[in-house]
Amino acid sequence: MSDPQESDSDETAPLQINGVTIEPTFAEAFDMKATRVIVTAIDAYWARQAAVAMSGFGTSVIDCKIEIDIERELTADETPDGRPGFALLGFAMSGDGLDKQIVRRCGQCVLTCPTTSLFSGMEHLRDQTDKRVALGKALRFFGDGHQISKWIEGQRYWRVPVMDGEFLCQHDAPRTDGIGGGNFLLVADSIGVALQAAKTAVDAIAPLPRVIAPFPGGVVRSGSKVGSKYKTLVASTNDAYCPTLRGIVDSKLTSDQNAVLEIVLDGLDFDSIATAIGTGVHAACEAFGQKGLLAITAGNYGGKLGRHHFKLHEILR
Amino acid sequence: MSDPQESDSDETAPLQINGVTIEPTFAEAFDMKATRVIVTAIDAYWARQAAVAMSGFGTSVIDCKIEIDIERELTADETPDGRPGFALLGFAMSGDGLDKQIVRRCGQCVLTCPTTSLFSGMEHLRDQTDKRVALGKALRFFGDGHQISKWIEGQRYWRVPVMDGEFLCQHDAPRTDGIGGGNFLLVADSIGVALQAAKTAVDAIAPLPRVIAPFPGGVVRSGSKVGSKYKTLVASTNDAYCPTLRGIVDSKLTSDQNAVLEIVLDGLDFDSIATAIGTGVHAACEAFGQKGLLAITAGNYGGKLGRHHFKLHEILR
Amino acid sequence: MSDPQESDSDETAPLQINGVTIEPTFAEAFDMKATRVIVTAIDAYWARQAAVAMSGFGTSVIDCKIEIDIERELTADETPDGRPGFALLGFAMSGDGLDKQIVRRCGQCVLTCPTTSLFSGMEHLRDQTDKRVALGKALRFFGDGHQISKWIEGQRYWRVPVMDGEFLCQHDAPRTDGIGGGNFLLVADSIGVALQAAKTAVDAIAPLPRVIAPFPGGVVRSGSKVGSKYKTLVASTNDAYCPTLRGIVDSKLTSDQNAVLEIVLDGLDFDSIATAIGTGVHAACEAFGQKGLLAITAGNYGGKLGRHHFKLHEILR
Amino acid sequence: MSDPQESDSDETAPLQINGVTIEPTFAEAFDMKATRVIVTAIDAYWARQAAVAMSGFGTSVIDCKIEIDIERELTADETPDGRPGFALLGFAMSGDGLDKQIVRRCGQCVLTCPTTSLFSGMEHLRDQTDKRVALGKALRFFGDGHQISKWIEGQRYWRVPVMDGEFLCQHDAPRTDGIGGGNFLLVADSIGVALQAAKTAVDAIAPLPRVIAPFPGGVVRSGSKVGSKYKTLVASTNDAYCPTLRGIVDSKLTSDQNAVLEIVLDGLDFDSIATAIGTGVHAACEAFGQKGLLAITAGNYGGKLGRHHFKLHEILR
Repeated sequence: MSDPQESDSDETAPLQINGVTIEPTFAEAFDMKATRVIVTAIDAYWARQAAVAMSGFGTSVIDCKIEIDIERELTADETPDGRPGFALLGFAMSGDGLDKQIVRRCGQCVLTCPTTSLFSGMEHLRDQTDKRVALGKALRFFGDGHQISKWIEGQRYWRVPVMDGEFLCQHDAPRTDGIGGGNFLLVADSIGVALQAAKTAVDAIAPLPRVIAPFPGGVVRSGSKVGSKYKTLVASTNDAYCPTLRGIVDSKLTSDQNAVLEIVLDGLDFDSIATAIGTGVHAACEAFGQKGLLAITAGNYGGKLGRHHFKLHEILR
Repeated sequence: MSDPQESDSDETAPLQINGVTIEPTFAEAFDMKATRVIVTAIDAYWARQAAVAMSGFGTSVIDCKIEIDIERELTADETPDGRPGFALLGFAMSGDGLDKQIVRRCGQCVLTCPTTSLFSGMEHLRDQTDKRVALGKALRFFGDGHQISKWIEGQRYWRVPVMDGEFLCQHDAPRTDGIGGGNFLLVADSIGVALQAAKTAVDAIAPLPRVIAPFPGGVVRSGSKVGSKYKTLVASTNDAYCPTLRGIVDSKLTSDQNAVLEIVLDGLDFDSIATAIGTGVHAACEAFGQKGLLAITAGNYGGKLGRHHFKLHEILR
Repeated sequence: MSDPQESDSDETAPLQINGVTIEPTFAEAFDMKATRVIVTAIDAYWARQAAVAMSGFGTSVIDCKIEIDIERELTADETPDGRPGFALLGFAMSGDGLDKQIVRRCGQCVLTCPTTSLFSGMEHLRDQTDKRVALGKALRFFGDGHQISKWIEGQRYWRVPVMDGEFLCQHDAPRTDGIGGGNFLLVADSIGVALQAAKTAVDAIAPLPRVIAPFPGGVVRSGSKVGSKYKTLVASTNDAYCPTLRGIVDSKLTSDQNAVLEIVLDGLDFDSIATAIGTGVHAACEAFGQKGLLAITAGNYGGKLGRHHFKLHEILR
Repeated sequence: MSDPQESDSDETAPLQINGVTIEPTFAEAFDMKATRVIVTAIDAYWARQAAVAMSGFGTSVIDCKIEIDIERELTADETPDGRPGFALLGFAMSGDGLDKQIVRRCGQCVLTCPTTSLFSGMEHLRDQTDKRVALGKALRFFGDGHQISKWIEGQRYWRVPVMDGEFLCQHDAPRTDGIGGGNFLLVADSIGVALQAAKTAVDAIAPLPRVIAPFPGGVVRSGSKVGSKYKTLVASTNDAYCPTLRGIVDSKLTSDQNAVLEIVLDGLDFDSIATAIGTGVHAACEAFGQKGLLAITAGNYGGKLGRHHFKLHEILR
């Protein structure tokens, strides 16, 4: 599968999956800067505490400055130091912004957490790019001069003395280009069905690599449109998809469509997000088609703001 | 128990609990501004997603701007709308800072999360103070003019249309004075014992009201001292408590003390923090005294920076 | 969809989903007796403790005497008493066996657990069948004469005095016919992929009603064949699917198929199990097709032992 | 601390901890047979699935035939094969009963669970006793002749071919004497306080080795007395501690004591249980003394049935 934004395909034939209408539309997504870091600890409990703390308040760049989430849990034989760990993916609008946020969050949530170590999760890119996000490069100064540099297999690490021994931390991590704002919407006859269908989609997406769903539980209910009647507000409620506004605004919801939930996806490339959309939509439709899940659609801005277009019919047909 | 910072007691007799030495020292804590908000949802799963997201990256005001955590889970009969929920406590250095951070986090993590509602958790103070933190007062504009004001029993709420129906949100929440930086340190012969003793203390403190332990898993391993050899760094590793620096710096650790962990506590008043220190220390000492937990101590700055002093011997004797 | 075991369809055309071969075979399943009970408590934590305890050691009727698992968590507005709860489905080979096991498990794991109540979860069948499983009918005697009978809307309940107040328990629950042993197998190139694909399938099946996957984490790795070289053993390892026995026995695995995991499903009717097979297979294939998941197959005994046949090509085509 | 049942101490002075009355009574406990097994897996998730399944429906020997629970989670460097794992303790009334139940549960819940291995957790006793519980000795036959014996450092293991590779299983595990039925009761002014105090006690006990609290969430609300007005019932509700029976029976509860919860403990020796009682009682009293936790007492049968007596005043003074 390749980035099809230049495609002129005219696929307008109706599409259904298990009785669920797939709307002939597309999700519009944006260029971002991304990196992966790996947090390990003496056991999965403490690694999880650091990873959960670090990925909190990281739902949208608008106010969080970064979109960040656990990519997946790692077994001991998947991590650089042979301990249990978690891979996290972070996305920001600029390389500098990413660098600043990653350092802050690692300093507050990993350096502080008992027994953790911190590593780059993109070593395969080290020789291909000079772009870096600072890890130990910035955090080492906490050692107040007692930190020790360490070279292992050509890579630089820092050993920073702390109260439980030493915080081991790689010097920096490569960063890369990413894509933010991939999405799909689940339209259901009730909030009960919408919730279960969304959770099924999120659970099916969870094990996939290279993609995160950064909102709480992976789901958004406050879909937004660009702009507002209030001049200082850059985004406001997507009134066309608000069931309580049917009859008041120009709604896109029919009379039996009473709840809509959105899944927003950030990924390291086009295919990762397309695969996640396909996986999530199929899982939800298989489980809740003909049981109240009525339609799948996607959010876009007419194609003018973001250069990545995920056409549902191309992905799902 | 009352705030004993004026006390001149000369309690210097040695104190032990189940064989664990309690050092004759005190924790030094600071004035902060605080509020409690309540997040509810259709079930505990979704309430938890919002609460966990909202309280992430909220360990220390230095870089997070707010210290925030779940105070405790609420059963349906404890919440304003009879649904399962969570109470969160947030602490910041100023009222304005608190206001700004609470609005941002509620906007990114509660407004966005399926089925949630948001309430003040300090209604008993509404008539006693004019200090407020904005909730719906700020978040309502997301409704783009379609939000509806609602008065219930003299209180103002907002109904903001979103894709799963309406986001119900109280107008504002009273704020109050709080105390940040209460603490104690667990000194053990090994990191294994230190981890288990710290987790036991955190688990015992968890059900207590009016207090949070905002670091990952409730525990800090990167204790800090004020200042650094690097001029721009306001805090650096507490070298006196780093086991790997024994023999290099003027250490406070004896040769058998190989791991130290700290529990930092923010609370709504002096007694809440004192009770939490007492509860956590007793639980850890009962479980791990004579099994590797060697001493309990506390962090202070000579008493000059923070006006609240938690003397361990007064609390624990 | 209806029970197709009489079908003579000759669907032998090859079938693939996202590159995963669907074998032209069927799962063979058996008649069982089934019931649903609902456990509620003051909050989801305690309801879960009872439900998890009650559904442990309930993987296979062979040695556990019952196959039992949580069907799904219930929100407060879905339960008879308006408290959070869990629905559990239990299956046994006979009505008497089911009755005996349900009473024992409720007595040991629900009656004992703080704040719980116990209800029938099949009230819609009460007027359609006389078959019953005892609940309070048997458990009430624990009250030693102090239990009180209570009629609510034509149904009998028992209030049994216990140390935290009273255990409220419905008199009995209807039972019905069920089907046990529905299944499918995931064949992968590595155990890593097999584990993730199986977990994805289980997560997608989890929200579905009327069906459970009773093995640990929903997955079995010890697939069995009928009989053994040891006369007293009724079942033994399914050597044709053991990767380490390729070259030793008549294997069904090719040289790149290195790990197989099975998902076993018990359901209240044919369609529930067929839907679960379809949902689980689609989710796994969408997520791991072309990434190491190679084939989906199913277990049967030549069609002679169980009268329910789930033909993969009919379900998935 | 040694088994004090022969003690004639006359400690009748009143005892309080943080305002909570400690009743001058004792818990009466029984001789049992015990063993520890260790379950490991590729990661903590799958090890937990097996451990949770295996320890379900294992609250009381009366109907479960075994009392079994997770002793604690093990980090990778604590297990025989360097993988994450769980230690479980099982207790039964006889060695034969223990052997039968452990084999059944391991066969249904560990052999079946992806990637698990099974080990003895009492190797330090192998040279001190000939008593054994069968593990691979019985489970190996599932291999249908394809199982392979393996000797490592003088110990016998079995490699049983299964669909995900091989199930590695130690031949047998030593068993030892244990004690069942250690206990204490928390008496509170409300069920809310009783629940939180009990959970605090259980959380503080959880990290302790050599002891389990086998009831749901570690807590029992259906305390029992020996015998019943119904001749076939060997135990019935402990009416003296039922708040709804005050005024009807000879109650031990005062008018402000409205909820009682019990924590039952099985341990490998007297001191393990005594330490757990001390730890749990202290944690609960520190956290909820003067907040509604009113008294701590214990259950016994006049000292005639069980030979181990845990005197609260001796343990807690």
